[in-house]
Amino acid sequence: MKTVIAVDAMGGDHGPSVTVPACLDFLAARGEASLLLVGLPDALASELAKAGAAGHPGIEVVPATEVVGMDEDIRTAIRTKRHSSMRVAIDLVKSGRAQACVSAGNTGALMGTAKFVLKTLPGIDRPAICGVLPTRKGQVYVLDLGANADCTPDHLLQFAAMGATLVEVVEERARPTVGLLNIGAEEIKGNEVVKKAGELLKASHLNFHGNVEGDDIYKGTTDVVVCDGFVGNVALKTSEGLAKMMGDFIKEEYMRGPLARLAAFVSLPVIRAFRRRLDHRRYNGATLVGLRGIVVKSHGSADRLAFATALGRAESEASHGLNDRIAAEIERLHGLGMLAGSARDPRAGAAA
Amino acid sequence: MKTVIAVDAMGGDHGPSVTVPACLDFLAARGEASLLLVGLPDALASELAKAGAAGHPGIEVVPATEVVGMDEDIRTAIRTKRHSSMRVAIDLVKSGRAQACVSAGNTGALMGTAKFVLKTLPGIDRPAICGVLPTRKGQVYVLDLGANADCTPDHLLQFAAMGATLVEVVEERARPTVGLLNIGAEEIKGNEVVKKAGELLKASHLNFHGNVEGDDIYKGTTDVVVCDGFVGNVALKTSEGLAKMMGDFIKEEYMRGPLARLAAFVSLPVIRAFRRRLDHRRYNGATLVGLRGIVVKSHGSADRLAFATALGRAESEASHGLNDRIAAEIERLHGLGMLAGSARDPRAGAAA
Repeated sequence: MKTVIAVDAMGGDHGPSVTVPACLDFLAARGEASLLLVGLPDALASELAKAGAAGHPGIEVVPATEVVGMDEDIRTAIRTKRHSSMRVAIDLVKSGRAQACVSAGNTGALMGTAKFVLKTLPGIDRPAICGVLPTRKGQVYVLDLGANADCTPDHLLQFAAMGATLVEVVEERARPTVGLLNIGAEEIKGNEVVKKAGELLKASHLNFHGNVEGDDIYKGTTDVVVCDGFVGNVALKTSEGLAKMMGDFIKEEYMRGPLARLAAFVSLPVIRAFRRRLDHRRYNGATLVGLRGIVVKSHGSADRLAFATALGRAESEASHGLNDRIAAEIERLHGLGMLAGSARDPRAGAAA
Repeated sequence: MKTVIAVDAMGGDHGPSVTVPACLDFLAARGEASLLLVGLPDALASELAKAGAAGHPGIEVVPATEVVGMDEDIRTAIRTKRHSSMRVAIDLVKSGRAQACVSAGNTGALMGTAKFVLKTLPGIDRPAICGVLPTRKGQVYVLDLGANADCTPDHLLQFAAMGATLVEVVEERARPTVGLLNIGAEEIKGNEVVKKAGELLKASHLNFHGNVEGDDIYKGTTDVVVCDGFVGNVALKTSEGLAKMMGDFIKEEYMRGPLARLAAFVSLPVIRAFRRRLDHRRYNGATLVGLRGIVVKSHGSADRLAFATALGRAESEASHGLNDRIAAEIERLHGLGMLAGSARDPRAGAAA
């Protein structure tokens, strides 16, 4: 069966001028998928025509009449914009016409709308945002990256199970290692929530490595790093800020006078190779795990390559049956008596 | 009056082989200070002789009979090692013989011993670790970097007041801006503690910029960034890990084949200039703010230049009367009714 992905073609900083070419690149590379392109029909038709892809057999345009702004209030987006490209794309997953959706729109609106429309998987209290970062050894999956600022130990255990399943399914790695993000050899090791989460993880069937510190993220100490959304978001944004500053400093130094410019010229292949290794576009696409449907969030500023990466991620997760595997994993944690009763009722996690 | 600094000469990964030369460099640059070099007398005499500095007029050796190990249990260090170089150095501050002390030893043991011996300043519930990071615009003071994993809004307000005073005093900058580390435009903006801390900061007399995100640290958006010790430690260690990975990747790419090596050779001045801008040794030395005495923690792996930087920081803070200024600032917050009553009693914060 072909995997069908719904694309919010209007989302992100650049809208269809990026999403449409990215969709065509994606289809050229992955013939086994087809796309439902959701957005303002005129804008999409114009971009498809520009790319000489009007009537592309892998693409069906699904009309939407409005767009969720990048800075729009989340409640407004969820309650009043029922015909936005974001909402329609998620509705297509809900109705079963698509197996996954991708949006570069407003993160809060996407998570809020997805929770409202799709509901959470049985046994999951809170969906989380799981992203991928480069490491010395390859890559690491980190969650939560910002959906849940306050978490309980139970939430962190659920995040761990979901992250491990994601790696198992998509990377085809058996028993991925899980690290709990904590602080070092200070007087008080970790806060109360993390301490209790560590005990739960130790008692679980997961391949728990133990505590990791911030630098372990990039060392690639574990396959998965678990933390609450506040800490995860700070770690992610701090990294973005530092990488940008370092990149700018290198650029500035290479522009300082004719000798430096010559050195830059000679170094171009080296600099390109270096940039390729850290290219965030190759890691684009964070998965909103824990929902009854696959939703992948692309970075708002994603370019063509980055957005195509996010589409590939969604396709891979859908074709590997990610959510069935997550549901089975959570069921297993419940079977082990690892999770508090509150989320046992399959409907308990369903509130938006 | 000469500023006297007590130096735990045994602390850190390298001990006297680094601390003694660093002390001599420091004294050569800052004639107005003198040092009490605390440690095993034989080890210190041998290092001083090696450097041709036996009988240096700016140095007095104060004997200690034991050393706190880098991985030593904190309670053991505090309770049983009463004659360690770390403890004796702190005792010298307590007794008034030194105006500040510097150690590259175990952070937890240093904070624990300093709290036990010196007690906290009136009105301060919890001392914090305040470090300095490079930014696009210069530098930023960040606290807490790991002493307090769980914080109340009151604690964060006290950290803000202490960090702002540190910048005001040492950098001689009037009304430094304070940012509260928070997460972005997600559905739930910040956790409960941070939200309340934001309200307190807004109502205070401090120059509160508002919320900042992780990337604002390196953008240099504010002079001070305030967060709890868990988040601060993760941000710091994540940064260390990313910077190290990026540095290693650059090195690896420049070693890949003869052309890349040639490019590296041509680029040497550029690479050196880049490294100088980010050189963590120039930012070494985190201040344990909120104690009745100035204590500066050097990175354990500090080399000669880095340890000398930490000594310079201690000297600057002591000569500028940092702690009187912090005490006055906290008194002012109390006068404004900004802090809960618990810490009003000057003795309330004195428990170890």
